[in-house]
Amino acid sequence: SNHSLPLFNKAFLEYYVHMCPSLQVIFSACELGVFDLLLKSQEALSARHVASELGTSVDGMERLLDALVGIEILEVETTDGTALYSSTDVANLYLAKGSAKSLHDMIIYQSQTIYPLWNNLMHAVREGKNQNEKTFGLSSDEVFQAIYRSEEEMLKFMGLMNSSWTLDGHDIVTAFNLSGFQTIVDLGGCTGALAREMAKAYPSSSVVVFDLPDVVEAAQKHFCQESDSVVFQSGDFFSGEIPPADLYVLARIIHDWPEEKCLVLLKKIYDICKPGGGVLLVEAMLFENKRGPVMAQIFSLNMLVQTEGRERPPSDYTHMFNKTGFHNVQVCRTGKSYDAILAIR
Amino acid sequence: SNHSLPLFNKAFLEYYVHMCPSLQVIFSACELGVFDLLLKSQEALSARHVASELGTSVDGMERLLDALVGIEILEVETTDGTALYSSTDVANLYLAKGSAKSLHDMIIYQSQTIYPLWNNLMHAVREGKNQNEKTFGLSSDEVFQAIYRSEEEMLKFMGLMNSSWTLDGHDIVTAFNLSGFQTIVDLGGCTGALAREMAKAYPSSSVVVFDLPDVVEAAQKHFCQESDSVVFQSGDFFSGEIPPADLYVLARIIHDWPEEKCLVLLKKIYDICKPGGGVLLVEAMLFENKRGPVMAQIFSLNMLVQTEGRERPPSDYTHMFNKTGFHNVQVCRTGKSYDAILAIR
Repeated sequence: SNHSLPLFNKAFLEYYVHMCPSLQVIFSACELGVFDLLLKSQEALSARHVASELGTSVDGMERLLDALVGIEILEVETTDGTALYSSTDVANLYLAKGSAKSLHDMIIYQSQTIYPLWNNLMHAVREGKNQNEKTFGLSSDEVFQAIYRSEEEMLKFMGLMNSSWTLDGHDIVTAFNLSGFQTIVDLGGCTGALAREMAKAYPSSSVVVFDLPDVVEAAQKHFCQESDSVVFQSGDFFSGEIPPADLYVLARIIHDWPEEKCLVLLKKIYDICKPGGGVLLVEAMLFENKRGPVMAQIFSLNMLVQTEGRERPPSDYTHMFNKTGFHNVQVCRTGKSYDAILAIR
Repeated sequence: SNHSLPLFNKAFLEYYVHMCPSLQVIFSACELGVFDLLLKSQEALSARHVASELGTSVDGMERLLDALVGIEILEVETTDGTALYSSTDVANLYLAKGSAKSLHDMIIYQSQTIYPLWNNLMHAVREGKNQNEKTFGLSSDEVFQAIYRSEEEMLKFMGLMNSSWTLDGHDIVTAFNLSGFQTIVDLGGCTGALAREMAKAYPSSSVVVFDLPDVVEAAQKHFCQESDSVVFQSGDFFSGEIPPADLYVLARIIHDWPEEKCLVLLKKIYDICKPGGGVLLVEAMLFENKRGPVMAQIFSLNMLVQTEGRERPPSDYTHMFNKTGFHNVQVCRTGKSYDAILAIR
């Protein structure tokens, strides 16, 4: 797998303990708008100029820019004794805002939400529960009240989901041939990014994004083009009604919740789903023995620090499907971050 | 250099954004005592057993142990349906407490001090000053009052310094032939680990460790063997007297302070130093154009987030030495994390 790490040894450990902060260098530059400024600028800029535009100290900005040069994210040349910094293709494409392939929103969410939560991983392991309280002073029982605690936070989370499906969505929607499903509802479909990949791959199907009213409103305001290929519908799949459909998509939903709650949701879907209809789960699947892939193991700890859920091996999904009446469970490992599991009523 | 990163690209970025949390997996396991327990245990242990011994949740511990297996820090075998975890040579040597080559103390300091400070890197760049206040609620003007805010914190910092010099000390003390210096005083010599490397390399020299009274007391209580090769002396090299010597060592001292303060210290040393005597600086040196090495650039940002100093290129040291009267400045890049600069009065 492209996600496996080289064997840990002493040199590796020392190296990464010191080098992983280089990610914070990128995070900080993203948050301060360095890459956006350099992309907009027609010429290379001095540290003083960048600092002045972005309202930072000159000394701190100079160190940050030099480190970005050191990790080959920026370029520098010296003119008349002044170091002038300019962007690279990598920075313009992936770190500046706005490009279709931008990781900007993912990075902001990692920096401001994930990394602070992970600083409390030890406490999460000790207590066996998420660290929303210790990290942000928020209740650990209301996961999405934490994630959606303000419009700003909601938009950050939606940005993360959006860039994730813009990057990986195509591999997921084509993991199985879903062209037989006429109506597809993406439950908790957020910005609609995965649903749009569905609509693109299966143009004769109609695709509905179902999410909480505030999420739908924000999606339509910030993440929709004029002639959108998907339709939005508001509701709460736990407390309210679910619209009828041939295929229900649950992408990174099941991993937020303990088994009891997942069973309630799957049973509810079963009851409204037509015979021959189905459910597509999208999750980072553990190996059956849970000893990998490393990325899924890390994601499972990520679920520990911020939700009530976990990542699971295939048999857990088969078990939940069988228990709620679904059959014909098929598992497809995409080889990317997220896998797909399809079951039929 | 073994510290240079591969060229950043999209795959690399995505990979490290997700994988750097694996360091937190190691950090948490260190802090919870997982590696110490497995080293002591004569047999492989279940997650339930480890959780019970260390007072953690079973679920959290199981995910943590599985992730440690995934990154090949632990091993697992299944007996009668129960996964039993055991340590590896890497974990026993570098992650458990107590071995001479242990990174344990460094990891604890990284996890509990460095990483939380780095979460505020953006603010450090913006404000151009350390983040002791935002991170720990401590004054940003009193760097060592922050680092030494409790005996526990002092011991953590001392553990970090100790393991650092146990690992890299030999390369530093042999960067120049120092056998001509009869009396060597390591100013701010902390636990004496670097001084002991000096005494080992130059057995006919006498080596004195000079540090604040509380530090000397803690060093003698926690870091000294019975027949120690070095002598400890208490004092404050800024506000008090400095003992006479042929060679003064300043290892990772200059990088804590702004130039004015460094000049005061070097002048004070010059005034007491015998002609023919010298000063050995030990720092991670930037390239003259500041565009590398990456590790020194990262260290310089590390100084930004937690001190009043910075890492510097060779000419900055030469300049400070010349300004305070020293001459014959020789620079030796060791190719490891820390370099050496020698000047003669």
